[in-house]
Amino acid sequence: MPTISKKGEQMPQSPIRKLVPFADKAAKKGKTIYYLNIGQPDIKTPEGALRAVKENDIEILSYSKSEGSETYREKIATYFKGHDIHITAEDIVVTTGASEALLFVFGSIMDPDDEVIITEPFYANYIAFSTASGVNVVPIISKIEDNFALPSVEAFEKLITPKTKAILICNPGNPTGNLYSKEEIQKLAAIVKKHDLFLIADEVYREFVYDGETHYSILQEKGIEEHAIMIDSVSKRYSMCGARVGSLASKNKMVIQTAIKFAQARLSPPTYAQIASEAALDTPRSYFDDVIAEYIDRRDTLITELRKIDGIKVSKPKGAFYCVVELPIKNSDHFAQWLLEEFDVNGETVMVAPAGGFYSTPGYGLNQIRIAYVLKKESLIKAVHILKEALKVYKD
Amino acid sequence: MPTISKKGEQMPQSPIRKLVPFADKAAKKGKTIYYLNIGQPDIKTPEGALRAVKENDIEILSYSKSEGSETYREKIATYFKGHDIHITAEDIVVTTGASEALLFVFGSIMDPDDEVIITEPFYANYIAFSTASGVNVVPIISKIEDNFALPSVEAFEKLITPKTKAILICNPGNPTGNLYSKEEIQKLAAIVKKHDLFLIADEVYREFVYDGETHYSILQEKGIEEHAIMIDSVSKRYSMCGARVGSLASKNKMVIQTAIKFAQARLSPPTYAQIASEAALDTPRSYFDDVIAEYIDRRDTLITELRKIDGIKVSKPKGAFYCVVELPIKNSDHFAQWLLEEFDVNGETVMVAPAGGFYSTPGYGLNQIRIAYVLKKESLIKAVHILKEALKVYKD
Ligand SMILES: Cc1ncc(COP(=O)(O)O)c(C=O)c1O
Ligand SMILES: Cc1ncc(COP(=O)(O)O)c(C=O)c1O
Repeated sequence: MPTISKKGEQMPQSPIRKLVPFADKAAKKGKTIYYLNIGQPDIKTPEGALRAVKENDIEILSYSKSEGSETYREKIATYFKGHDIHITAEDIVVTTGASEALLFVFGSIMDPDDEVIITEPFYANYIAFSTASGVNVVPIISKIEDNFALPSVEAFEKLITPKTKAILICNPGNPTGNLYSKEEIQKLAAIVKKHDLFLIADEVYREFVYDGETHYSILQEKGIEEHAIMIDSVSKRYSMCGARVGSLASKNKMVIQTAIKFAQARLSPPTYAQIASEAALDTPRSYFDDVIAEYIDRRDTLITELRKIDGIKVSKPKGAFYCVVELPIKNSDHFAQWLLEEFDVNGETVMVAPAGGFYSTPGYGLNQIRIAYVLKKESLIKAVHILKEALKVYKD
Repeated sequence: MPTISKKGEQMPQSPIRKLVPFADKAAKKGKTIYYLNIGQPDIKTPEGALRAVKENDIEILSYSKSEGSETYREKIATYFKGHDIHITAEDIVVTTGASEALLFVFGSIMDPDDEVIITEPFYANYIAFSTASGVNVVPIISKIEDNFALPSVEAFEKLITPKTKAILICNPGNPTGNLYSKEEIQKLAAIVKKHDLFLIADEVYREFVYDGETHYSILQEKGIEEHAIMIDSVSKRYSMCGARVGSLASKNKMVIQTAIKFAQARLSPPTYAQIASEAALDTPRSYFDDVIAEYIDRRDTLITELRKIDGIKVSKPKGAFYCVVELPIKNSDHFAQWLLEEFDVNGETVMVAPAGGFYSTPGYGLNQIRIAYVLKKESLIKAVHILKEALKVYKD
């Protein structure tokens, strides 16, 4: 009997997915579950995007250009100009979600056994994309005590080896909710210039920035044009996760040319989704104002309620819609499963993401969970109440 | 300045794409071009599929299940039952086109430096997927003189090494138009059983089979359940190339579990496209009858016209919508470019696919082109006339 690959064995299973069977079982038993575990917003997709698809007049659903339709890439460039990011359609490759953009970038700049330094905790699938590409992840820890600020230049330099090809950050951060300052981006710029590395920034949460802060993109930083590769997506911005449209952007022509070869091999990004995404770019600013007001309200509620619980630590998110919470427990995998299997308050429980999967340093994150505030305020209040009651009786 | 990866350098550029700038230039100059080079059918997408998308009532365009929606996989299984292929929804992973299915399969069963034997000439992107996965392609030649029949068992066995993990066939074949018989599939079955290999069959053209022949799927062959992995797609079947929906299917549970890990990493296949694809499964049989009648008519016209040209060889396709033509020339890359740049008959010319890119054995295919009969009969007649006139004056 033929066997699967080592790579296939090593592919991680997402820590959240592992819990799904327990959630399904609990739901079947009639428990109500507050899903705080996933990054699937409950926000409505902009009307214009949905309408564009409904009103399409396609007769032959053809392949689009591999790098994305000309008009769509032009419009993306215009969108970025509005954010003080000056790139043209030629600097952009449209992909099937940020997921595919990350795979193309990893393939374009790294060979098996090359190393990518990633600030930890990180989006769990970075490990999966690295495994799929045969690349080694070198984690660099950022701490809840420091509000997940960028580690020091020295800490980065200690980890750089001849095999290091890139530094990958997520800004605003999933799962941390952290937002890197302009100064932090400039520190990274200095490192990648000095050591001839790529700087990849996953900026899919760019629009979700709170408290009057502004997002500083790596593409705004002068002098790292050949180093900077930015990852984007419509998934969260327009609550269009199911579209599967993202992009990568860089001023480095070789990177773009190479990514396009990967893009050509898989022929084209999805056509309907590009129609929706192009229309989404006409979404009025008021949509975001409402969405951001909603997220700020949720975040404030969540943080206020969480801080009422004894013995927990939480860092106030400045962006995205996640926060990491440190609990007085030993094993959040077990805790999360226990919440689903054994605990309820009047028939209600919560599903959280154990944070172990967001770290690759062994032992880290085991007393942490990630909460996504993708539910309405009232649900968040109830969910935190359940968490509080749970911690009173939970033993690990 | 940081540099791209070796893998990125090695990623092939499709031989067809290389010609696109010349075609664009010719078109700009006012030349009419008959595009015989691409596998993008001009057939209309089934009404039901288009309508399902137009009538969708999505308010939040959410991620679907990573392995594809339950209902869609159930319906795919039912579709296969109608083709005497007995699998269940659990044996199927829905992917973003056959392209992604191939990438998942390569990643699931092969590590860098493993080898896959592929019958040559083959779909050019198999090389790209192999390069992206770090896998080595070992070509096994099939010849136009033999109508691209399966090479002998001995020829396969000569190529098998400890690094061989799989044999990959395309059936019906792109670019050959060949259809493997039940006996040929059984030969392959014997080889993969004896040598403990996987057998991957790209069956995306399954419905396009002519002259009363029937397609025999590797999933119909008893005794290779643990070896067989089938690749499918809606792209050609329903003229829905832009949907980006395909699938992989296998009775081997480890393969499916592993492929699902790759699927989870990229979150979900496109949602709108799955709606269209699910509806497409209700397409009445008469749609295919019409489409197949149309393709047979085109093929017969094409072959009849081609055979009127002196000094060419062509193998009559039994399936798909391509044929390989051997011409009295030395370099079809040059010839194809010359057709676009320098030749016309009353302002009209043709774009063909040079066949070199369908071979990895050096020197093969240089006197061959692939013609896709995705144009109407009248256009095909004109196109072959242009080819005939061109060959009279072309010098290489
Ligand atoms: C930080 C981050 N990057 C990338 C992705 C993948 O997004 P997409 O849906 O565009 O593939 C996600 C999804 O949750 C994410 O949180
Ligand atoms: C043999 C073969 N396999 C796979 C594909 C890729 O198809 P998809 O559009 O499903 O990715 C093609 C497309 O031309 C093909 O000809």
